[in-house]
Amino acid sequence: MFYHQKELQFHAKPDKPDPVMAKHLQEILGGQFGEMSVAMQYLFQGFNTRGNEQYKDLVMSTGTEELGHIEMIATMIARLLENAPLDQLDQAAKDPVIGAVLSGMNPHHAIVSGLGATPENSAGVPWNAGYIVASGNLLTDMRANVNAESQGRLQVARLYEMTSDSGVREMLSFLLARDTMHQNQWMAAVKELEEKDGIIAPGSVPSEWEATEFSHQYMNFSSGTSKDDQVWSQGEAPDGATFEYVEHPTPHAEKPILQPVPNFTHNTPPTEDEKQQTSSLKEIFKKKEE
Amino acid sequence: MFYHQKELQFHAKPDKPDPVMAKHLQEILGGQFGEMSVAMQYLFQGFNTRGNEQYKDLVMSTGTEELGHIEMIATMIARLLENAPLDQLDQAAKDPVIGAVLSGMNPHHAIVSGLGATPENSAGVPWNAGYIVASGNLLTDMRANVNAESQGRLQVARLYEMTSDSGVREMLSFLLARDTMHQNQWMAAVKELEEKDGIIAPGSVPSEWEATEFSHQYMNFSSGTSKDDQVWSQGEAPDGATFEYVEHPTPHAEKPILQPVPNFTHNTPPTEDEKQQTSSLKEIFKKKEE
Amino acid sequence: MFYHQKELQFHAKPDKPDPVMAKHLQEILGGQFGEMSVAMQYLFQGFNTRGNEQYKDLVMSTGTEELGHIEMIATMIARLLENAPLDQLDQAAKDPVIGAVLSGMNPHHAIVSGLGATPENSAGVPWNAGYIVASGNLLTDMRANVNAESQGRLQVARLYEMTSDSGVREMLSFLLARDTMHQNQWMAAVKELEEKDGIIAPGSVPSEWEATEFSHQYMNFSSGTSKDDQVWSQGEAPDGATFEYVEHPTPHAEKPILQPVPNFTHNTPPTEDEKQQTSSLKEIFKKKEE
Amino acid sequence: MFYHQKELQFHAKPDKPDPVMAKHLQEILGGQFGEMSVAMQYLFQGFNTRGNEQYKDLVMSTGTEELGHIEMIATMIARLLENAPLDQLDQAAKDPVIGAVLSGMNPHHAIVSGLGATPENSAGVPWNAGYIVASGNLLTDMRANVNAESQGRLQVARLYEMTSDSGVREMLSFLLARDTMHQNQWMAAVKELEEKDGIIAPGSVPSEWEATEFSHQYMNFSSGTSKDDQVWSQGEAPDGATFEYVEHPTPHAEKPILQPVPNFTHNTPPTEDEKQQTSSLKEIFKKKEE
Amino acid sequence: MFYHQKELQFHAKPDKPDPVMAKHLQEILGGQFGEMSVAMQYLFQGFNTRGNEQYKDLVMSTGTEELGHIEMIATMIARLLENAPLDQLDQAAKDPVIGAVLSGMNPHHAIVSGLGATPENSAGVPWNAGYIVASGNLLTDMRANVNAESQGRLQVARLYEMTSDSGVREMLSFLLARDTMHQNQWMAAVKELEEKDGIIAPGSVPSEWEATEFSHQYMNFSSGTSKDDQVWSQGEAPDGATFEYVEHPTPHAEKPILQPVPNFTHNTPPTEDEKQQTSSLKEIFKKKEE
Amino acid sequence: MFYHQKELQFHAKPDKPDPVMAKHLQEILGGQFGEMSVAMQYLFQGFNTRGNEQYKDLVMSTGTEELGHIEMIATMIARLLENAPLDQLDQAAKDPVIGAVLSGMNPHHAIVSGLGATPENSAGVPWNAGYIVASGNLLTDMRANVNAESQGRLQVARLYEMTSDSGVREMLSFLLARDTMHQNQWMAAVKELEEKDGIIAPGSVPSEWEATEFSHQYMNFSSGTSKDDQVWSQGEAPDGATFEYVEHPTPHAEKPILQPVPNFTHNTPPTEDEKQQTSSLKEIFKKKEE
Repeated sequence: MFYHQKELQFHAKPDKPDPVMAKHLQEILGGQFGEMSVAMQYLFQGFNTRGNEQYKDLVMSTGTEELGHIEMIATMIARLLENAPLDQLDQAAKDPVIGAVLSGMNPHHAIVSGLGATPENSAGVPWNAGYIVASGNLLTDMRANVNAESQGRLQVARLYEMTSDSGVREMLSFLLARDTMHQNQWMAAVKELEEKDGIIAPGSVPSEWEATEFSHQYMNFSSGTSKDDQVWSQGEAPDGATFEYVEHPTPHAEKPILQPVPNFTHNTPPTEDEKQQTSSLKEIFKKKEE
Repeated sequence: MFYHQKELQFHAKPDKPDPVMAKHLQEILGGQFGEMSVAMQYLFQGFNTRGNEQYKDLVMSTGTEELGHIEMIATMIARLLENAPLDQLDQAAKDPVIGAVLSGMNPHHAIVSGLGATPENSAGVPWNAGYIVASGNLLTDMRANVNAESQGRLQVARLYEMTSDSGVREMLSFLLARDTMHQNQWMAAVKELEEKDGIIAPGSVPSEWEATEFSHQYMNFSSGTSKDDQVWSQGEAPDGATFEYVEHPTPHAEKPILQPVPNFTHNTPPTEDEKQQTSSLKEIFKKKEE
Repeated sequence: MFYHQKELQFHAKPDKPDPVMAKHLQEILGGQFGEMSVAMQYLFQGFNTRGNEQYKDLVMSTGTEELGHIEMIATMIARLLENAPLDQLDQAAKDPVIGAVLSGMNPHHAIVSGLGATPENSAGVPWNAGYIVASGNLLTDMRANVNAESQGRLQVARLYEMTSDSGVREMLSFLLARDTMHQNQWMAAVKELEEKDGIIAPGSVPSEWEATEFSHQYMNFSSGTSKDDQVWSQGEAPDGATFEYVEHPTPHAEKPILQPVPNFTHNTPPTEDEKQQTSSLKEIFKKKEE
Repeated sequence: MFYHQKELQFHAKPDKPDPVMAKHLQEILGGQFGEMSVAMQYLFQGFNTRGNEQYKDLVMSTGTEELGHIEMIATMIARLLENAPLDQLDQAAKDPVIGAVLSGMNPHHAIVSGLGATPENSAGVPWNAGYIVASGNLLTDMRANVNAESQGRLQVARLYEMTSDSGVREMLSFLLARDTMHQNQWMAAVKELEEKDGIIAPGSVPSEWEATEFSHQYMNFSSGTSKDDQVWSQGEAPDGATFEYVEHPTPHAEKPILQPVPNFTHNTPPTEDEKQQTSSLKEIFKKKEE
Repeated sequence: MFYHQKELQFHAKPDKPDPVMAKHLQEILGGQFGEMSVAMQYLFQGFNTRGNEQYKDLVMSTGTEELGHIEMIATMIARLLENAPLDQLDQAAKDPVIGAVLSGMNPHHAIVSGLGATPENSAGVPWNAGYIVASGNLLTDMRANVNAESQGRLQVARLYEMTSDSGVREMLSFLLARDTMHQNQWMAAVKELEEKDGIIAPGSVPSEWEATEFSHQYMNFSSGTSKDDQVWSQGEAPDGATFEYVEHPTPHAEKPILQPVPNFTHNTPPTEDEKQQTSSLKEIFKKKEE
Repeated sequence: MFYHQKELQFHAKPDKPDPVMAKHLQEILGGQFGEMSVAMQYLFQGFNTRGNEQYKDLVMSTGTEELGHIEMIATMIARLLENAPLDQLDQAAKDPVIGAVLSGMNPHHAIVSGLGATPENSAGVPWNAGYIVASGNLLTDMRANVNAESQGRLQVARLYEMTSDSGVREMLSFLLARDTMHQNQWMAAVKELEEKDGIIAPGSVPSEWEATEFSHQYMNFSSGTSKDDQVWSQGEAPDGATFEYVEHPTPHAEKPILQPVPNFTHNTPPTEDEKQQTSSLKEIFKKKEE
């Protein structure tokens, strides 16, 4: 269950309006690695945690913080949109500076949300849940979290460079700091889990399931000069085994030839020869049932 | 530029048809962390690498291998679909075992692809490029790669459990091994980059941009018992600083109050009092231009 | 800013496992009118409210409650998935009852989330923000909210019919009640706003902008028997004017003929006659600039 | 079955080209509440209506009118695009006024459609059927329709403000009028259905299914000052019962603890203690079958 | 402008209910090549046709017919869903035959549409406008139409095989016939346009723009045996030139090396050597302006 | 299995930076008919080909070439983005020429990819697999391929017009040539398959399945003047039969009336009369089982 505190976690007040920056900030609100993504990712991880209560606490608590970041950035966007001269744009466009600003706006800010934030990325594409991951395996998910905070902090840093507005930069300085913390905390969790389960995830796969002769081979699928002196092609691998360099990887199987299928698929009909290779449907299927 | 070798990288031949397993295998072909995702993710990272040629080689070569994995899994799916009795399903469904099998198929395998693999996940949702990342920052992207291979190997392990078909399992044993290698190689790359750029990504953010007082605080946004004894709330953080535990995080800013906007937005009209707070559009915008 | 209370708002404990019901419940979690939709819809409305603080409170508070509903339903789904026999499905499927159950599962529950809830609808399609609305106009948004709670309660009622599990039904009984409340509260808000702004939204459109001769005509675009005795084709309209019935609506404009465009579009070339109608690009564009 | 009349329902002829306005108008063609949405929404409602033939007529007839609105707006967009100087944009961009215009275009209008309308919103995102609703319950669907026409008319009003082109405005004045009519007609239908089925939708839920103690409680999930004097927190609710104000809502259930799941999920392994809580899979599932 | 005739274009009455067939028929309603796709594709082509009025008539008229096909199939689906026992599915599932049927349903038919058709494909994915094409070039679009009707008729034929219901088959026999006609008509149009504009689309590209030495080379990018005796690798090409066979295609350009970019991107920093290659931003950009 | 050759297939080096052209080129990289589409379309067709090995070779080889085109265009985009002044955009925007350029950029190029190509179209919408087709029927798929190469070449031609950069044009000249070849090869394949299977796809549908009286009727669903003198409404059809012109097409079936459904759907309740028409669920369903 959740509660809302009316005050913001941190300041979200720009010096002055800037509709183009409002569009750009949408990326860290509703983009692939925006606050909607991390909030939902951490909360779904929490909902699905089975046992390991300290991890459930960790992801629920951080996910809840991120809900507050959605609020901060949405507020900032709404304020950056105040005072955009959206009436009679065809007139405004005659002043090229205004024209450039308005051409660079997200039209949804004008037409759809009435100068409010939208749940979209910086190109106007709606957020979707295909961005997030909650797998039930804590080590894999903590790695997803390290990635999300790394990509997110990178985008915040780029946005910081793109503006000189001290109010926007102040909010971004807070996000940079929280992303530092979140990278730290997820890395600490990854380390703890790796110590318990091993570094190759998931740690529960029996070695006899795995074609282990291929587990440490760096296969060079590109033409040209060797790269056999890299940390990923020689020496000790992170899991303790030794990397092997395969300069010219070759196929380990035949050219695939698929069986023609019966006429009821209306696929391109097989030639007469090929037809004879197809066994009777019913026989094969019956065998499967036995 | 790419070349195609007609032989498969590894075996992809099931013991017998199984249309339901064909549906399930779609997840590692066209799902969020399937082979289409890793192939495209690594290739786009390669296309965008600037300098650092050994990394470009690494991602291009691995991405090229993954193209061959798409081929292997697609071939396996096509073979698992051979001999499904798709004519007159209403008759077939009277046999409940057949009925269960056919109810569990992906209908696209019957209607759209004519018993071939589709570029979709196990629920029939088409692959989309919102799954992948290629940011131009190698450390963040190598972390994305560690995550992708961890999620992918987890899904392969689950699929291994879901079948007793020795042919399907043989292919999965190869994928488990390659995912082990790929986790190893991306982790080796992460380590090398962290040594160069620091562990908080991106390493290029000046500390004066960051509200560093918040960079190591674990904030407890959940009710109830303390978690101040965790590796993420006390002791040394991965970046060398010290974690701090904040049991009762409080807001650092005011309740946000947005300015009412002019009538041309047709937002709900502000009250008379609120109207007076709104400055003239043209004045404000003019100031911005100066 | 948000806080999380570890206890659930209401019970979410099924009598027994039911993976098919788990799939069905995804609709009210991650579907078009699921809890993710209403939570995000109300919160974005709150973030964007300008003035009218009592409405901001209303939507923020209700949106916060809905976050807790996401948690309840996700927990219920996770519990319904416990004990599904997902190992060696090809063996399990020989028992047709088990086969039917497993054929009816969402494969993501097995392969992707490890028996946890996913941010998807009942067909496995990820939630996306194209479902929600936050327009900056309170009357229109309160109407969107009445609709969302009506559709949502309808789906809850259907799910109630689809199970006899007393634990699932208990949770649904709570959701039915809260949806009753939320319909009530949004209708109360609609009424208050209509009294202030008029019932045709947005109320701020000057009548001279509107081709008012068409504002109350019911136009019959279907063949056959008259429907001139309906409450929408005669008598007093909700806005106080009188409905008019137009049995045979006719066009009010010409057949549209578009100008051929220059060769640089590589559109199908216009005939010689048509070419002469096209004025010089540069002239026309220049005129526009003046 | 449908017929096409070659003449347009209303004028769609701009005074002059305006590629930026062409982009903006896409919102009411292919956006969430554009004409594609209302046409498809009303037609699918009609296709699915069971009994209640006068409602079927109403939605089919209005849906058919909306098809004609798609045509009008698409024609307007095509005309607004005539004469955009799309050859050698890199040269054109040196004139900042032209540059601003061309920067503000939807690139699909140039590259994909050859100066024609596209089935997309104003940000270039393709229309999708996740926007629409046809539930089989007339009251809920009429409410969806009231919402759609309210949002749509709001967007038309905003677009009216954004241009001074008298031809564009003339078309918009017609759309404003038809949206007035459509709001009126759907509200008339809602009222008729509420009188029959009650105002809480769906009206067919037996009260014993509902946890009625929660059906009229306004729960305050936000911090701070009371809002117990609002029309949604006190007095008579629209359904005739009395609103109750709950200042400090509390949980009605325990903290959720999920059971660990078997190893075949490859979730993070439970601790030894937790493992003992897990009953044998087969036993539990067998019980379910009985 | 459009009109609706209440009668259906053709019969849409199944012999008996069949919820699984209802799901399958969704493919030709809301799938990639379903009736929603062809209706919208032809209508948008019509809206955008410039000159060439006989083609505009052709696509508008056929698009209008397809609207009636949407109606027929939606009606058939609604009837196939009548009488599905959706109450207390957990009880019903104990009968494995019923269980198989219900497991095979689209859950949206039960929960979302109340036994009506949905605007989705057979896997439950909503229709989206990314499926359709209207390019402004008639030859390319007529080819898109030939493809759409070929794929569509293939799917209809497969669905015909999947049922023995004479009512469903009757409707499908009509669709097979209309798809035959539509293939015929689009092919006739293609032929007429090819005679006018040439067979390589678009015909308006000057030959000096094209690297014509590559315009007729069949490049063999696969390993192994030659295919130099195929109709696409030797002899006269459709455009009258002669096919050439290139057994071992080679690169025509260097290995790409991208310039490192400035620090403000926070990309992985280039090495010192690489840094010197990067020219000053401002200089380069200034040059561009001149 | 695939290999990567480090050299590019063709030159991809612009004369100078142009971030707006970079955005435009995304259409042929990640748009509906971009290189990602044709690569994946041909490869999936290859994976699914059953028998007919020469066709498998054809599509695999061409698909592999297209992978190299993805690489070329991605490289070009990365180079066009070099030297965009993305720091402190609010300052840069005061120069209207720079402002226009930056307003016209894809914000993802700045924020997400760090001046690299993205897997998106020119409006910033991610590529998705709903664009492609691989049906198992070679004739239908070769027609899809003719269409894809026609649309693709049209877009390349338009992009050629939009720039005067000789480096960009050089790459486009190569793509124009390869699209010429690919149109030629797919048309050659179509012709060969039509000679074998007939021109109406799929050729395997028995004529008795088809309502052949409708197979050659051109139905005029538009008002007004006759078009009975067109190549699609009179004379010999491509399949050898004779076109027939139907000026006033009429319905061939009744107005559809759907049965009301039981209360458990919570649809709008049928009237008393309508209720009596509904037979008992269980009876009907039982009959179906017999």
